[in-house]
Amino acid sequence: MEIGWIGTGVMGASMAGHLLGAGHRLRVFTRTPSKAAGLLERGALWADSPAAAAEGADLAISIVGMPEDVEEVHLGTRGTLAATSAPKVVVDMTTSSPALAVRIAEAAADRGVGAVDAPVSGGDVGAREARLSIMVGGADAAVAAARPAFECMGRTVVHQGPPGSGQHTKMVNQIAIASTMVGMCEGLRYAEDAGLDPKQVLESISGGAAGSWTLTNLAPRVLRSDLEPGFRIDHFLKDLRIALSEAERMNLDLPGVRLARELYEHAVAAGLAEKGTHALVDVVATRNGRPRA
Amino acid sequence: MEIGWIGTGVMGASMAGHLLGAGHRLRVFTRTPSKAAGLLERGALWADSPAAAAEGADLAISIVGMPEDVEEVHLGTRGTLAATSAPKVVVDMTTSSPALAVRIAEAAADRGVGAVDAPVSGGDVGAREARLSIMVGGADAAVAAARPAFECMGRTVVHQGPPGSGQHTKMVNQIAIASTMVGMCEGLRYAEDAGLDPKQVLESISGGAAGSWTLTNLAPRVLRSDLEPGFRIDHFLKDLRIALSEAERMNLDLPGVRLARELYEHAVAAGLAEKGTHALVDVVATRNGRPRA
Repeated sequence: MEIGWIGTGVMGASMAGHLLGAGHRLRVFTRTPSKAAGLLERGALWADSPAAAAEGADLAISIVGMPEDVEEVHLGTRGTLAATSAPKVVVDMTTSSPALAVRIAEAAADRGVGAVDAPVSGGDVGAREARLSIMVGGADAAVAAARPAFECMGRTVVHQGPPGSGQHTKMVNQIAIASTMVGMCEGLRYAEDAGLDPKQVLESISGGAAGSWTLTNLAPRVLRSDLEPGFRIDHFLKDLRIALSEAERMNLDLPGVRLARELYEHAVAAGLAEKGTHALVDVVATRNGRPRA
Repeated sequence: MEIGWIGTGVMGASMAGHLLGAGHRLRVFTRTPSKAAGLLERGALWADSPAAAAEGADLAISIVGMPEDVEEVHLGTRGTLAATSAPKVVVDMTTSSPALAVRIAEAAADRGVGAVDAPVSGGDVGAREARLSIMVGGADAAVAAARPAFECMGRTVVHQGPPGSGQHTKMVNQIAIASTMVGMCEGLRYAEDAGLDPKQVLESISGGAAGSWTLTNLAPRVLRSDLEPGFRIDHFLKDLRIALSEAERMNLDLPGVRLARELYEHAVAAGLAEKGTHALVDVVATRNGRPRA
């Protein structure tokens, strides 16, 4: 396929690489051109704008930062939907607002273009190893057109429903993670304060009803004071804000997410924005004014 | 060994059965004698009090309901430590207060008796299949004396530290579960309200970073409206109260546990005390005044 690709951060660069590897032809636009160098060396062409990348393409796929970026990439004056010869389907794989996904789908429909929202989970490792879970929203025909590309990048590809459903599914994912992370951080701190050996505690609890991906994968990083991302706190906070704003629209109260947002806001205020989500442990640790040992 | 056994609820009856199966001799006391019938048929002897069960035994093991029950069983006038010929080691496997475990160990030491706190996780199934995780606190010699019994009942037996450490470890377990459960319930409710198919959502998220024992084992029960325990809400609430009271003693704030306690108190007020912990979904579901579909 002819694919326009917008966004070559840690996730995007790996994902686009799998499409090249599978023989698709890519035109790439990204805000920081140096980050596209690896893809250009492997045969991708450079495009000067999202519109240029999308020109006449089968798919125009974005994975960028914030919902504002997604909006500009697809709906802006030099966005994919402003291409002279419209792409067949626009796909956004950023974790972004479900309401925006619906707006993009409506604008796309006005031009006879399909639209798919398809955020992912699995992190940088999942992206590198093509083991992502891809949560897909969109009309059947558009999703069918994008599926071959998804299957190059992910292992679990589930069509969740109409436009916005991929983003909503990702929000469920983030909602579950948010409170699980609070539980892990509070548990580790309690263990330390009770004079236990947290590593030994994990031996007792990780395999049972308290077990989680978070406890298995992130608690050991906390214990060796490795707070690097993984997934960055500022990005996660963006996701929690989207979830709460969508929940409010549905008149749904999510006190666990509200608490997590509050704690992560403390984390940003403490200078931890670019640390991993598990650095929340330092916020739990300082709430009573005591720095962590 | 000669073992006094106190408490034959769902967990205790299975656990004591494994000791009989391994050839240990049991004297059993329990508040509701009919619940000991299965063990008596298999050769256990009846005792009229914890003291009688413990009389001259190698181990006197309890697994009962509330910390008050634990206190009475070991420190009461007819408790294990009131036996004429003291048992060698008293063991409490109830999930109970770490502070009480320390008090029992002190009282036991006064009589030259060892003491071990050894709460478990793994639920009724883990108890039945001898796959429990047993979290052990106590002095080395006492723990060594109890270990052969633990190995009949559990798969993961970890000595966590001095008296109270088993209970503290179990608190870490419950702290981690509490927030994970809030996250699962909020996630499922969000999914429903967003018009997603929650079962399909689980396909996308259970295998990734949002994954947990809770999501894998309890979310499917929620989806088929099976809110039976598993683990009862009133018992879990007892554990959360112990965790918060211990945390307060350590001057440690646990906002995630506080939130979970509040939600579970709503659950009890809504008549859900004897339902499973995952019935919390009905509380999340009614916080905005809307009963769950």
